[in-house]
Amino acid sequence: MSVKHKNLLGIEPLDKVEIEQILDGAKIFKELCAGNNKKFPALRGKLILNLFMENSTRTRSSFEIAEKRLGADILNFSASASSLTKGESFYDTIKTLESMEPHIVVMRHSSPGSAKFLADNIDASVANAGDGPHEHPTQALLDAFTIREKMGTLTGLKIVIAGDIAHSRVTRSNIFLLTKMGNDVVLSGPATLIPREIEGLNVKVETDFDKAIEDADVVMMLRIQKERQKESFFPSLEEFNMLYGLSRERLKRLKEKSIVMHPGPINRGVEINSEVADGARSVILEQVSNGISIRMAVLYLLAGGKINELTH
Amino acid sequence: MSVKHKNLLGIEPLDKVEIEQILDGAKIFKELCAGNNKKFPALRGKLILNLFMENSTRTRSSFEIAEKRLGADILNFSASASSLTKGESFYDTIKTLESMEPHIVVMRHSSPGSAKFLADNIDASVANAGDGPHEHPTQALLDAFTIREKMGTLTGLKIVIAGDIAHSRVTRSNIFLLTKMGNDVVLSGPATLIPREIEGLNVKVETDFDKAIEDADVVMMLRIQKERQKESFFPSLEEFNMLYGLSRERLKRLKEKSIVMHPGPINRGVEINSEVADGARSVILEQVSNGISIRMAVLYLLAGGKINELTH
Amino acid sequence: MSVKHKNLLGIEPLDKVEIEQILDGAKIFKELCAGNNKKFPALRGKLILNLFMENSTRTRSSFEIAEKRLGADILNFSASASSLTKGESFYDTIKTLESMEPHIVVMRHSSPGSAKFLADNIDASVANAGDGPHEHPTQALLDAFTIREKMGTLTGLKIVIAGDIAHSRVTRSNIFLLTKMGNDVVLSGPATLIPREIEGLNVKVETDFDKAIEDADVVMMLRIQKERQKESFFPSLEEFNMLYGLSRERLKRLKEKSIVMHPGPINRGVEINSEVADGARSVILEQVSNGISIRMAVLYLLAGGKINELTH
Repeated sequence: MSVKHKNLLGIEPLDKVEIEQILDGAKIFKELCAGNNKKFPALRGKLILNLFMENSTRTRSSFEIAEKRLGADILNFSASASSLTKGESFYDTIKTLESMEPHIVVMRHSSPGSAKFLADNIDASVANAGDGPHEHPTQALLDAFTIREKMGTLTGLKIVIAGDIAHSRVTRSNIFLLTKMGNDVVLSGPATLIPREIEGLNVKVETDFDKAIEDADVVMMLRIQKERQKESFFPSLEEFNMLYGLSRERLKRLKEKSIVMHPGPINRGVEINSEVADGARSVILEQVSNGISIRMAVLYLLAGGKINELTH
Repeated sequence: MSVKHKNLLGIEPLDKVEIEQILDGAKIFKELCAGNNKKFPALRGKLILNLFMENSTRTRSSFEIAEKRLGADILNFSASASSLTKGESFYDTIKTLESMEPHIVVMRHSSPGSAKFLADNIDASVANAGDGPHEHPTQALLDAFTIREKMGTLTGLKIVIAGDIAHSRVTRSNIFLLTKMGNDVVLSGPATLIPREIEGLNVKVETDFDKAIEDADVVMMLRIQKERQKESFFPSLEEFNMLYGLSRERLKRLKEKSIVMHPGPINRGVEINSEVADGARSVILEQVSNGISIRMAVLYLLAGGKINELTH
Repeated sequence: MSVKHKNLLGIEPLDKVEIEQILDGAKIFKELCAGNNKKFPALRGKLILNLFMENSTRTRSSFEIAEKRLGADILNFSASASSLTKGESFYDTIKTLESMEPHIVVMRHSSPGSAKFLADNIDASVANAGDGPHEHPTQALLDAFTIREKMGTLTGLKIVIAGDIAHSRVTRSNIFLLTKMGNDVVLSGPATLIPREIEGLNVKVETDFDKAIEDADVVMMLRIQKERQKESFFPSLEEFNMLYGLSRERLKRLKEKSIVMHPGPINRGVEINSEVADGARSVILEQVSNGISIRMAVLYLLAGGKINELTH
């Protein structure tokens, strides 16, 4: 991202200064786009390939809007339009894509490490839009941006991430980012949904949700994928809600100026109750808006743009 | 559309002046785009979401071309790319879309009233591209534009709408528009395909097609959806054609300067015979062309543009 | 393409001068796009319809990138978005598309002759992106461009086309082009994969691959579609590779400065071995890059552009 990085593969390789550089860039883009004209064509004449090998509407739309605001030429590949890869090795697909001379490739793929493999084999810059359970860096960045904007700081906070930790794309990236910035991260959820390995990542685990959220500054609820219920990670959606759903009652345990986050889409009445999702502490929809600014900053930096050349 | 309207949800809420304003705008856009360069980037830097929850190639393409001519940034959502809505309430989908800060949302949806629900819950302007059997206002507007252009007037005409009235998206919008402008509207078709409620809408019903078209200025044929035949609304396609198909013979019953319309796609030999569809009175393909001008005018007005600022 | 042609339907109707005009145009576009800004908006305000009635990722992406570099407005129709054509004759679909006033239609279709039928019935220019087994002219042009660039000439060469001749989209177009330019074309492959009719096209057939490639300047390997193996055109993929696969051993039979080509996607270890595909003589990935320049030149010429007005 800075001179050191040609790619955004994850949060793990970034240091504090680099993370702040992206957040500062996103802040400027948010201000630039606050008016009616949201066009800032710094990437005019640059080709971006959106290579979504897994379904994604939210992340993909957000990247695409960011790319259009930046004036880039865009080519979309979806999982269904996979004749490119049919009978072709992933390596050959990459080399073919490279021959089309994109400046940036945005990729979502089900395999952890696929973003790195892509970056190792292509001249273009790579933005990882989720590589299986490994990392989803732009989600963590937009979460951090939202926390910093709302709380006025991104350090010294108690941040609880709760629910389906095991199947979450974003928890690992969030843990890397939030601990690097000096926050206390507490994971909560049924033991069946918290993988043991994660305890090595400088976080606390507290399966009692009521204890976990005590005096929290930020609570990030994760989406329960209802189809997973069949696999019996927990007895029922009702019981899950009773034990781990964020309700108005539970909100009282948080700090007074705390915020509630969710990467969406939300399950009302499961991991989060409607009165909380729609309440004053919820910043869920601002996360969506901020995602566009974060992706503008990431793409701008990957294309060689400099933050101090952005003028208000 | 004017200062009074932020949305185009249907024809019913519009008055004569507003309808004429849109038609006049479309006329100017048609002239502006008559040359080789069809670009008129009045919506540059504005984001339009095309949210097609039902399949539509014709309407969707027409909107998309209009949007491109106007220079807008465009994001397409199709029914298949519904991970956005999967397990998510329509309300939450709308709020997520709103967070992406579109200026205009163009929506087709199978539920009547969905366009109003969207408009009530989003800051963006809404253009209804068909909400189930309720309204399809841009189709009625392009039909009206074509009639006015061809007949030199949009008042005092006898206009017959014939065929599958019951399953038609566009008949209600056309009835609202054409009666508001002071025309006589006659519906014709098998009684099984004419809902009783429609007689309240200031129209005549005449199931004898030969009587209905006597001295008509305009005949609008509606598409028979062949798969509906199983449901036995009429005995056979051949019999339907014999009783309600527009043939060269039947054309003689119309006024001398009459025109023949069809929203497409046509079923040759069912509701319309080839010699009529391809004949001198047919304006079917001009309807398609005019649809682009109408949609340019609608989007331009929704974005706050003023017709008198459009220069030739 | 020149004043004589409004369409590019195939290579067969072109003469040497016209072929060279396209190749020269592509050379200039390649140079123009060598820098970081690949935008050359000569087609701004022009609408291009991409009508892909058969799946194609590689050709379609290449056309789309070319169109974006040229600044055209683009509307994509895929086979799945076929509500346009559902229950509608191909003729009516074409007339509807024409009413949308595109400047150029790029079409892939499974029926030979469909591109000509389209061109005969539409005002727009037509670029054939493959009409069944008939022609695939832009592939032949990009192959010729690559040969001319690499070999320094496009005449007097011995060019072998090998493998699945029978099911190849591109062999016919390549034969027309390469023989017009005065090259010796030799076809090789199992007799079951070489249709008898092709011998009328001024080519030699040599089923012994080792003899065929003796002193060749260019070897073009064609993709074996593995699903075809069931139909028993050859005993096994292993045996095919032994008899017709391009291996490092076989490379020694070619001329010293020869090149190896493949339209992609490649089957490693079937028609081509990895050490050859990735070796110094392989120009496979340059073919992909050059495809974009060729399509820019074709679209530019179809839109009425003049090569001598392109400035470096």
